[in-house]
Amino acid sequence: MLSYKTNMLGKYGRPDQIKTELEAMFGENVSFNKALREHHGNDVSWHKAQLPDAVILPKNNDDIIKLVKIAVKNRVPLIPFGAGTSLEAHIHAPYGGISVDLSKMNKIISFHQEDMAITVQAGVTRKQLDSFLKGTGLFFPIDPGADATIGGMAATRASGTNAVRYGTMSEAVLNLTAVMPNGEIVRTGRRAKKTSAGYDLTHLLIGSEGTLGIITEVTLKLHGVPEAIIGGYCPFPDIESACNAAMLTVQSGIPVARMELLDKLQVKASNQHDNLNLQETPTLFVEFHGSPSSTKEQADLFDEIIQDFGGGPFSYADKTEDRNALWAARHEALWAAKAFCPGKHMIITDVCVPISRLAEAIVQTQNDLEELSLVAPLVGHVGDGNFHLFLMVDETNEHEVSMAKKLLNRLIQRAHEMDGTCTGEHGIGKGKKAALISEHGQELVGIMKSIKKTLDPENIFNPENIF
Amino acid sequence: MLSYKTNMLGKYGRPDQIKTELEAMFGENVSFNKALREHHGNDVSWHKAQLPDAVILPKNNDDIIKLVKIAVKNRVPLIPFGAGTSLEAHIHAPYGGISVDLSKMNKIISFHQEDMAITVQAGVTRKQLDSFLKGTGLFFPIDPGADATIGGMAATRASGTNAVRYGTMSEAVLNLTAVMPNGEIVRTGRRAKKTSAGYDLTHLLIGSEGTLGIITEVTLKLHGVPEAIIGGYCPFPDIESACNAAMLTVQSGIPVARMELLDKLQVKASNQHDNLNLQETPTLFVEFHGSPSSTKEQADLFDEIIQDFGGGPFSYADKTEDRNALWAARHEALWAAKAFCPGKHMIITDVCVPISRLAEAIVQTQNDLEELSLVAPLVGHVGDGNFHLFLMVDETNEHEVSMAKKLLNRLIQRAHEMDGTCTGEHGIGKGKKAALISEHGQELVGIMKSIKKTLDPENIFNPENIF
Repeated sequence: MLSYKTNMLGKYGRPDQIKTELEAMFGENVSFNKALREHHGNDVSWHKAQLPDAVILPKNNDDIIKLVKIAVKNRVPLIPFGAGTSLEAHIHAPYGGISVDLSKMNKIISFHQEDMAITVQAGVTRKQLDSFLKGTGLFFPIDPGADATIGGMAATRASGTNAVRYGTMSEAVLNLTAVMPNGEIVRTGRRAKKTSAGYDLTHLLIGSEGTLGIITEVTLKLHGVPEAIIGGYCPFPDIESACNAAMLTVQSGIPVARMELLDKLQVKASNQHDNLNLQETPTLFVEFHGSPSSTKEQADLFDEIIQDFGGGPFSYADKTEDRNALWAARHEALWAAKAFCPGKHMIITDVCVPISRLAEAIVQTQNDLEELSLVAPLVGHVGDGNFHLFLMVDETNEHEVSMAKKLLNRLIQRAHEMDGTCTGEHGIGKGKKAALISEHGQELVGIMKSIKKTLDPENIFNPENIF
Repeated sequence: MLSYKTNMLGKYGRPDQIKTELEAMFGENVSFNKALREHHGNDVSWHKAQLPDAVILPKNNDDIIKLVKIAVKNRVPLIPFGAGTSLEAHIHAPYGGISVDLSKMNKIISFHQEDMAITVQAGVTRKQLDSFLKGTGLFFPIDPGADATIGGMAATRASGTNAVRYGTMSEAVLNLTAVMPNGEIVRTGRRAKKTSAGYDLTHLLIGSEGTLGIITEVTLKLHGVPEAIIGGYCPFPDIESACNAAMLTVQSGIPVARMELLDKLQVKASNQHDNLNLQETPTLFVEFHGSPSSTKEQADLFDEIIQDFGGGPFSYADKTEDRNALWAARHEALWAAKAFCPGKHMIITDVCVPISRLAEAIVQTQNDLEELSLVAPLVGHVGDGNFHLFLMVDETNEHEVSMAKKLLNRLIQRAHEMDGTCTGEHGIGKGKKAALISEHGQELVGIMKSIKKTLDPENIFNPENIF
């Protein structure tokens, strides 16, 4: 890591050198307060905090355009900040600079109910959007565990439990508006459902982790609230059978809306944390969307499949409250895992493999954990071949730390050997830069870098992420 | 248009200057034959032919790498060629150069049945892929009218009749392999269903129309052949009611697999061309995929909707042959339209609008046609808000040509006013460059251009397309 204030492009400036200008521009919406900066330079991940020098809360697009111009002129890093829930230190500020907190830009701009679409400011959170959509007959399916902002979710190509049926942010965004490093504001597309007009800059910005532009508005595709929902859970004798049942469900073409794996340890942790009473064995949480008859048909087919793998019984969560409790527990899995191992540091990571390799990948990972004497509750969006580890590490124990590193390396290497990816939905950030190169090769990463250098020649936008 | 052999970057070289080198490298797979060059510099569109100086048929990736290196060194334009079915002169060679015909690269590389994916060389055509998949229980849904190559379909972000349910090439490609202007071959991603590892270069290449890289291999997502299919057609009293029925079908959340509009004129043309016996009035062709009960449920709901709009009766095409005949007619619509107006030149164009504006867009376009005394059968992937015109023009009639231009301008302007796009699936090519700028603005197009310039500084890859 290069030292503070410098990178390959030369010295960075600092916001206090342009303090008067910033204060004149942003008034009470710029702060140099340490507690605030600590909140902005420290995510929930295992990465050490790296504070920005200042925090600015823009109120509108014009604020951001002004900010970008002054930052680029003075070579001050800009670090976009949504809800601070990213997991690979995306929001950390290794060279200081300004955290651009979009929480004041949280308006619904326009709701296009007839087109099943909505345009929101980047600071709108997913729960805020859920509340807005209540009663409209439409919903937005992407649900990362945290109450992230839509802008942050776009910037990190987030997904969640519904991705197996409804896709990720990659499929959910119709177009977005962003302020680019040259100070220009662009809208990447129209509201038509499909287009073949020019390069797909929408997808270039989705997953760019704040390094190419600051996303300020997003137009999202919505879906009709299903007429009927059947949800429930199902225990399995071992993790392999749970994975194989998940695989066959997908392969059978059952349009399962959610299919989440919790390993034995995670079930224990969730039982304790969320007052559940699940059998402590690998378990799938599932949900089917459709008409009353089609959901029943899906659930019946699923029931046949799980029996073939020794799973079951499938317990229906008929009441909405029961279903909500189940999914709340799934969304709280991270905190349940943390509470389960008090005093330990939690390394949160994910990989994604082709679904035919999922059982193997998970079984081998659990063998690794045992061999290396490590503890890590496991959850997975298994319909997508994506799983997460909450690796619990005593940071003061050098041996354990080195075993954890070994585990993480093996995990990524195995994903790559299976033609999978080093991250299904967390992003590269500052934590997986080496994995990016082993995944794509220097040639492809070189192309990514050349795009970065063209659009942000001074490397002002979220430096030290991805590359 | 700049003159032959020069563009903004200086002079282009010509393949005959490196003839000996090319012949040594490619032997019988390089040709300077005029008939072959005519076939390669002339698509089915209204654009005038512009011939390449040579045609090369590479046999493998290494051939293309070698070719790119020698072409860049000698500044010879390279024009990727699949099946030659593009509609905006993508394959035309305004500065001459080499047409890179991928038809010899037509192998299935690897079939991942358990993961519902397949990797093919770029020259595989969609019908070839269909044949390969027959009997496997899987199918590939993207079906542009022509028997295009998978590489060409990726390069132009093609779609077709199934896009309303299964998406376009933007959703269908898991990763692709391309030779870039720097002569490096890259694979843009892994086979995992989702990833958040770095910039999305897969989507940057999809729809880049050969201007950023030559696509050589594509990994596609496949879908399970539905257990049951119900298809049929349904007449409407007028085009507005047909559009509104289509809109309500989508808004009701019926997961219709195909929903195609043919206007009265197109029905007439198809009746003549394909020996159909349809009532000559605006008609929807539809298809529902699912289980026997869920397809029946969808068809029943659809039947209720069409009755609300005065449509019907809904005629089921129960037998596979009948259904195939229906969809064959839809895929042949262009040729039926051409045969309907012998001696006329056909301008094929498409736009796409938010579905809530579809009826308006189509009705106003038909009013324009009447006002300007023009003839144009109309078909539409109406579930996506996308429609096509086959505008019939007597090229020797100056007045008619100028009315046609007026019509095309109004069509695009209207799509833009409705927050739609100037092309839903045909691409920009050489025909819609001005529309690209009015759609996105100079700022966004400027960013696209800067990416092009970074990756292809000599503007060797398919010059004069998009920009």
